[in-house]
Amino acid sequence: MSDDLVLYQAADGIATLTLNNRKRRNALSTETMSMLLDFLRTIKDSREVRVVVLRAEGPVFSSGHDLKELRDGCEADYAGVFQTCIELMAAIRALPKPLIAMVDGLATAAGCQLVAASDLAVATEGSSFAAPGVKIGVFCTTPGVAIARSVMPKKAMEMLLTGLPISAEEAVQAGLINRAVPKGALEETTYALAALIADASPVTLAIGKEAFYRQIDMECGAAYKYAAEIMVKNTLEPDAQEGINAFFDKRKPQWGDQR
Amino acid sequence: MSDDLVLYQAADGIATLTLNNRKRRNALSTETMSMLLDFLRTIKDSREVRVVVLRAEGPVFSSGHDLKELRDGCEADYAGVFQTCIELMAAIRALPKPLIAMVDGLATAAGCQLVAASDLAVATEGSSFAAPGVKIGVFCTTPGVAIARSVMPKKAMEMLLTGLPISAEEAVQAGLINRAVPKGALEETTYALAALIADASPVTLAIGKEAFYRQIDMECGAAYKYAAEIMVKNTLEPDAQEGINAFFDKRKPQWGDQR
Amino acid sequence: MSDDLVLYQAADGIATLTLNNRKRRNALSTETMSMLLDFLRTIKDSREVRVVVLRAEGPVFSSGHDLKELRDGCEADYAGVFQTCIELMAAIRALPKPLIAMVDGLATAAGCQLVAASDLAVATEGSSFAAPGVKIGVFCTTPGVAIARSVMPKKAMEMLLTGLPISAEEAVQAGLINRAVPKGALEETTYALAALIADASPVTLAIGKEAFYRQIDMECGAAYKYAAEIMVKNTLEPDAQEGINAFFDKRKPQWGDQR
Repeated sequence: MSDDLVLYQAADGIATLTLNNRKRRNALSTETMSMLLDFLRTIKDSREVRVVVLRAEGPVFSSGHDLKELRDGCEADYAGVFQTCIELMAAIRALPKPLIAMVDGLATAAGCQLVAASDLAVATEGSSFAAPGVKIGVFCTTPGVAIARSVMPKKAMEMLLTGLPISAEEAVQAGLINRAVPKGALEETTYALAALIADASPVTLAIGKEAFYRQIDMECGAAYKYAAEIMVKNTLEPDAQEGINAFFDKRKPQWGDQR
Repeated sequence: MSDDLVLYQAADGIATLTLNNRKRRNALSTETMSMLLDFLRTIKDSREVRVVVLRAEGPVFSSGHDLKELRDGCEADYAGVFQTCIELMAAIRALPKPLIAMVDGLATAAGCQLVAASDLAVATEGSSFAAPGVKIGVFCTTPGVAIARSVMPKKAMEMLLTGLPISAEEAVQAGLINRAVPKGALEETTYALAALIADASPVTLAIGKEAFYRQIDMECGAAYKYAAEIMVKNTLEPDAQEGINAFFDKRKPQWGDQR
Repeated sequence: MSDDLVLYQAADGIATLTLNNRKRRNALSTETMSMLLDFLRTIKDSREVRVVVLRAEGPVFSSGHDLKELRDGCEADYAGVFQTCIELMAAIRALPKPLIAMVDGLATAAGCQLVAASDLAVATEGSSFAAPGVKIGVFCTTPGVAIARSVMPKKAMEMLLTGLPISAEEAVQAGLINRAVPKGALEETTYALAALIADASPVTLAIGKEAFYRQIDMECGAAYKYAAEIMVKNTLEPDAQEGINAFFDKRKPQWGDQR
């Protein structure tokens, strides 16, 4: 067993990042967040990786920030922690490959934020999600950014004001995760989803993911105008022409950037 | 049977637009989109029409863009297709009368976008909705604009990244459509909804629909300020005064612009 | 029984505002809205109050604006009504303490807006919610601002275009309210929720609520940047340091601003 805080593995176009600090409930210490950032930078430029699965060892997916880093410190200390945190969130969003959170257990505070900030999320039925900072005097404001962009405001406010966990089933209904499955089906479901996505053209996925997050923050008319430009650019790509021709030929497309 | 790509019919204040190209799975060719645009321009100024139902012949509501128009073309060709597409979306939004999509079957890619961009949507329980462009190398970025404004981001991303269809029931839960009904109840449900809306003052509907889509893109405080101005303008309308007086008199209001 | 339009009561950190005009279906007359505004201004500065419950006497939570004030008036009259209305909405949002709507019965038009604009809402299973202005020629545009920020657009449009009520269960699913409970459990559920929130640091609640509503209107990257600054500020607060230390000491935190 490795002692590294984050493990990296890749096969069949799917990279797996594993939070590997079960003793500390996979706390997002600055060191752990920095390691995640380093891996994401590597993955970003990898020709082999098409999709990422983010998982964790132990019964807690992640308990959020390392509270030792938020105690008895000065402004610069805390600013460093949260700066690294928002860089991590930005890196997930800017990653030109989809990232799927695979959750088995509790995801709280910045751990819940990590799930909310993922492109997709699958969890076991027994998993739960909470934003309990309010109970220790630190409102989950950064997690709230991701949560409020994943679920409706009253549900987000309920999580943030009460700190109470919601079940995986509630999380599906609210939009925080995509699927809640029995424990025995978690890996299979998540990696089947990853494999399905890994079948797509990496160029298309990169164009599509970037455009999705850019248009979502625009006024509707501007979003359509921007999206139409992206569609033209995408259609001009060799992979798009190959995909359309393969569709007419009733064959599997051969993407330019094959593994 | 007409060979026209889009059929138009109107009765009792309700206009029906029917996609009539079942052999081509009601593809949204530039010609079809242009015909829809022409009809929407006519309807916009019609004193008779108060609400629009958009439906389709055959088992596919619409399969989206005509892929022949996206193959072996130049930038200007593709730009023409997507420009017409976003003009159609803008025309639905700017139409001063509510538009209801009535779906029986599959709505994919720009066909799903058409449903998402409608004001309301009713579908049969067997209908399904997908954004499968990713499979042929063309990410459904423009459909994503409409879908991401109808459902929560993780559900939108799931549709866009996997291309997998969601059922009518899932579509209701996600917010993509309003109701899923048995096949035998589709027409009755849709036209009852249309008739209910057609009972309202056309002046009020026009003011309300426009204001809804304008305020939804504003910051909350600005949205309230704008909405309050619209409420004042609306209350000053003769139809509003008639409506309020009818309420106190316990009688049915007589709108100024009666059919 | 008091004849005051709005009653005020406070105990254990929880203030209760009661709409007390059941004969007029708790209409939000300018006088009633002004009284609510006055109470909110008082509560805002109260050191005793940590959370607010907004409830109503009688079978109608609130029927919305007083239609007598919207009849046979001039522009300045109507402008006064809606200006007061949006000041009330802004005051709820700006209140540095969470506000929970406790609904037993019908909430329509601006009454529904009041529920939608609350931070949280609990209702009896028999309650219902409607935006029926369209039926009397006055589209519920200001209620639509709050409703469209609580539920997905197609559900909001359905309420606004049809005026039909939705049930408490539908309201939970749509995100308009947090919980639908049996009539006998309404008070207990609401006040337990209020008590849970009242246990939190008032400084933390004030920071968190303000930040939530500010970040939600920002583009995602700007929201994270702003949220990170707020987290640093929050972590520097004595209550946060006390909360974190109490967590490590496994004891209940003692907030600085104890009742």
